[in-house]
Amino acid sequence: MKIAIAQLDYHIGNIEGNLKKMLEAVSAAREQGADIVCFGELAVCGYPPRDFLEFEDFIDQCNQSIESLRQASKGIAIAVGAPTRNPVRAGKDLYNSAYFLFEGEVLGIQHKALLPTYDIFDEYRYFEPAKKFQTVSFKGKKIALSICEDIWNVGNENPLYTVCPLDEMMWERPDFILNLSASPFSYDHAEWRIHTVRVNVNQYRIPMFYTNGVGAQTDIIFDGGSLVMSGDGKVFDEMPYFEEGLRVYDLEEVLAGGRSNEQPKDKIKMIHDALVMGIRDYFRKLGFSKAIIGLSGGIDSAVTTVLAVRALGKENVRVLLMPSQFSTGHSVDDARVLAENLGIQYDIIPIKPMYDAFENTLQPLFQGMPFNVTEENIQARVRGILLMAMSNKFGNILLNTTNKSEMAVGYGTLYGDLCGGIAVLGDVYKTEVYKLAHYLNETGAGIPENSIIKPPSAELRPGQKDSDSLPPYDILDPLLFQYIECRKGPDELIAMGFDEALVRRVLRLANINEFKREQAPPVLRVSNKAFGMGRRLPIVGKYLS
Amino acid sequence: MKIAIAQLDYHIGNIEGNLKKMLEAVSAAREQGADIVCFGELAVCGYPPRDFLEFEDFIDQCNQSIESLRQASKGIAIAVGAPTRNPVRAGKDLYNSAYFLFEGEVLGIQHKALLPTYDIFDEYRYFEPAKKFQTVSFKGKKIALSICEDIWNVGNENPLYTVCPLDEMMWERPDFILNLSASPFSYDHAEWRIHTVRVNVNQYRIPMFYTNGVGAQTDIIFDGGSLVMSGDGKVFDEMPYFEEGLRVYDLEEVLAGGRSNEQPKDKIKMIHDALVMGIRDYFRKLGFSKAIIGLSGGIDSAVTTVLAVRALGKENVRVLLMPSQFSTGHSVDDARVLAENLGIQYDIIPIKPMYDAFENTLQPLFQGMPFNVTEENIQARVRGILLMAMSNKFGNILLNTTNKSEMAVGYGTLYGDLCGGIAVLGDVYKTEVYKLAHYLNETGAGIPENSIIKPPSAELRPGQKDSDSLPPYDILDPLLFQYIECRKGPDELIAMGFDEALVRRVLRLANINEFKREQAPPVLRVSNKAFGMGRRLPIVGKYLS
Repeated sequence: MKIAIAQLDYHIGNIEGNLKKMLEAVSAAREQGADIVCFGELAVCGYPPRDFLEFEDFIDQCNQSIESLRQASKGIAIAVGAPTRNPVRAGKDLYNSAYFLFEGEVLGIQHKALLPTYDIFDEYRYFEPAKKFQTVSFKGKKIALSICEDIWNVGNENPLYTVCPLDEMMWERPDFILNLSASPFSYDHAEWRIHTVRVNVNQYRIPMFYTNGVGAQTDIIFDGGSLVMSGDGKVFDEMPYFEEGLRVYDLEEVLAGGRSNEQPKDKIKMIHDALVMGIRDYFRKLGFSKAIIGLSGGIDSAVTTVLAVRALGKENVRVLLMPSQFSTGHSVDDARVLAENLGIQYDIIPIKPMYDAFENTLQPLFQGMPFNVTEENIQARVRGILLMAMSNKFGNILLNTTNKSEMAVGYGTLYGDLCGGIAVLGDVYKTEVYKLAHYLNETGAGIPENSIIKPPSAELRPGQKDSDSLPPYDILDPLLFQYIECRKGPDELIAMGFDEALVRRVLRLANINEFKREQAPPVLRVSNKAFGMGRRLPIVGKYLS
Repeated sequence: MKIAIAQLDYHIGNIEGNLKKMLEAVSAAREQGADIVCFGELAVCGYPPRDFLEFEDFIDQCNQSIESLRQASKGIAIAVGAPTRNPVRAGKDLYNSAYFLFEGEVLGIQHKALLPTYDIFDEYRYFEPAKKFQTVSFKGKKIALSICEDIWNVGNENPLYTVCPLDEMMWERPDFILNLSASPFSYDHAEWRIHTVRVNVNQYRIPMFYTNGVGAQTDIIFDGGSLVMSGDGKVFDEMPYFEEGLRVYDLEEVLAGGRSNEQPKDKIKMIHDALVMGIRDYFRKLGFSKAIIGLSGGIDSAVTTVLAVRALGKENVRVLLMPSQFSTGHSVDDARVLAENLGIQYDIIPIKPMYDAFENTLQPLFQGMPFNVTEENIQARVRGILLMAMSNKFGNILLNTTNKSEMAVGYGTLYGDLCGGIAVLGDVYKTEVYKLAHYLNETGAGIPENSIIKPPSAELRPGQKDSDSLPPYDILDPLLFQYIECRKGPDELIAMGFDEALVRRVLRLANINEFKREQAPPVLRVSNKAFGMGRRLPIVGKYLS
């Protein structure tokens, strides 16, 4: 028996496009002699479909897709994820389901039992958990069909759920497990995923064919890395990260085991590849091709620009250099050198005329009051208007260059440098941005050394440095990591050795700036706790503020 | 036996403040001879605490509050909601619980079973559902203690859950039901709430004491309206909407029934009161007192300004009138008349100097290209910068004036008129804004007639009217209502009689503008489907776009 894994980039709500892509994969798999072709979780509609699921019409369209796939299942079985209606009156109206289609018949349908409802996931918002579990019989084999999270409750120290779906099928003695997933990227998730598959394989002593999606859905990035693990716990094969693909496996070979083909997982390279795909898919799925970026001469906008060029091509990236009276000469030079190294279109637009117009206009209202954050913000907001004007006039989408450290402590101007369609580095701490910059230069980016080594500055007042108002990033970032990613409270952080005054100050900054993040662009998610849907905090909340 | 209902305005995460408030209510209830005092769901931490619940330290602080209340329960029982830890390894780490404390003892603790995970609610993100149900014995009575949603699964045509918690207690023959709630306002929710309490009372034939919270938590408004229903299904008493209060009820009188004291529920008045409380609590809970608003002479900013004056006092509201070359003379006059009627500080700042500076600066890049939405947006964004500059300099929080119709179809400028700390009218359709304006004027607001009767216009180009690019609001709003509140898809809308081309156009506008709403301020929620956390749609989603 031959089993094909189709690792595809689905597009949420593009039901017709997803179907077309799957039908092509069905044909290709059939041509390669596959008996089964596997697609991802909720493949017909893309993951996560969110509140689209609340429209009857949307579910009808998903059903029509399944109908087309059913008709296409001639000579090849199709395992595919789709939402299905719950026929029972009580409980949620939908199931998150996996169909097993063959020769125009539905040979099996397995609903998902474990519905991730944490971080970015909201599945219990929509779906009733499965209560019945049954294998699928196909060509003399018994298949344990499962969906994503249903394999994630095995062997955990603190299991999130009280049931374990595969346990309920094992009395039928299945020959192998198919898992249809939509498992998003974070820089250490691929290792966890392989670990989880291995725990299952070790528990049940049968191989697993694990199909993941690939591609970005706004903030959420799917990295692919679909895999086959043989019963001996070895990674028989792992499909590429960050690209689509179709591979066909011989079940007998997998059952024999002994082969190991795991990919390297370098953190910075994976973040890089994820961000490039994140930018590319954001543009492609929205139907845009061109980006605009404000290039300051600093490292964040430099890294963002290089990533945009890699994602969209140099002909599609345009930058504005917008010096003010507080900009240092070398900043404009550094920005210009990078633009020239990249071969992208750039314009230099000093912001003085607009800034002066605001200052003169507001002078009667502000008289006698000193220069403060107000005037700093005006500069950042003038730049925002200029970038958005270019965006409106030429159709270039503005990329936001804020990093995670700044976003965490509110070191940025709402409606100023926080403008943009998507925040490319919003889940990358400043100390990681440096590592990305080095990686980019190792791979030929040409970011001027000066942009990397000079002390970070917003250049919004004379001689300003980030370190005037923030602790050094090599202290700040580990503290933020423990607070944001690891959810450590103040006492725990102090017990870890962080300075008490610093802990109180940074946690307060993080909390009182929730209002800014609420209005910030969506953030390309590369860690296991990014700002956005995965981290939900009250704005008027008083805790730690 | 006497039972006190304490209807309090909790503050999320202000655990110390909430405790202080509850201890005062315990004393007051004791002085009034109450045997039991009831507080709301998750009263110790405020509702919804969101991801604060993921911090061990936060749960520890909640536990300390319960400890203080336990010690305060001398001579009076306290029913209070708090998060508690799940001692079992499998499943979520917390329960959403109701404590029943008396004489320093925990007489009972009932966890919540039905965890709302829809619209604005995310409870299964945090909580394990209760599986055990037991009454509390107190002074010879048996009490069915329950939390909010646990009474909402009775008698529904399409029940969301598969269990019914109170059913599980009835074999113990309880004497009455206590329900601790955090049930948010929407303009028809009070009627549903009474209906739901009545369905339970009719089912179980015992009285219910229903305690709700009051006050706004950013976008989510709790209206109070705590109530006592006797076993005959009559509203024995209903506490006021939109204010705190403490009332003591004699159980014997409630058991006797026959009394009916229900409040009127006028939709527009309730929306008005909710918005005033929403503004007031947003400022108070964030520690601010002063607002700034851009007053255009149109109806939306006029209504927002009057509401702000009612919430914060005229001395705390300041407005900017920012005419452009496209503003009609009467707009400035109408705005000035309103400011003078309200007795608030206003300044007139023509935007021409800033607009011209942008135009001149961008002219070399834009040469030969016609005036379009770019230049319209520059005007709106210059106003945004001016308002935010005032906000930064004087500490006035900017109130957003966008209405729900505009927000739905993206008729507004991101980083321009979409700026602000909170969107006061973001859940009020334009046709309802007119009704609000009439109500405000009936209650003495003094909005100039001209602001109400003139055709709506953004005044961003010569002679512009909303009706140039949008259908009339009396057609648009019912269509949006069916799409947003009722989740009708295109075929259903067309079958209802809406013009097909209009349906396609409006649904497309609504969907492609998700990126704007993602970065819009939080919206004061007054309907059962507001933009924000209650409506989660993908930005790159392709459905209906």
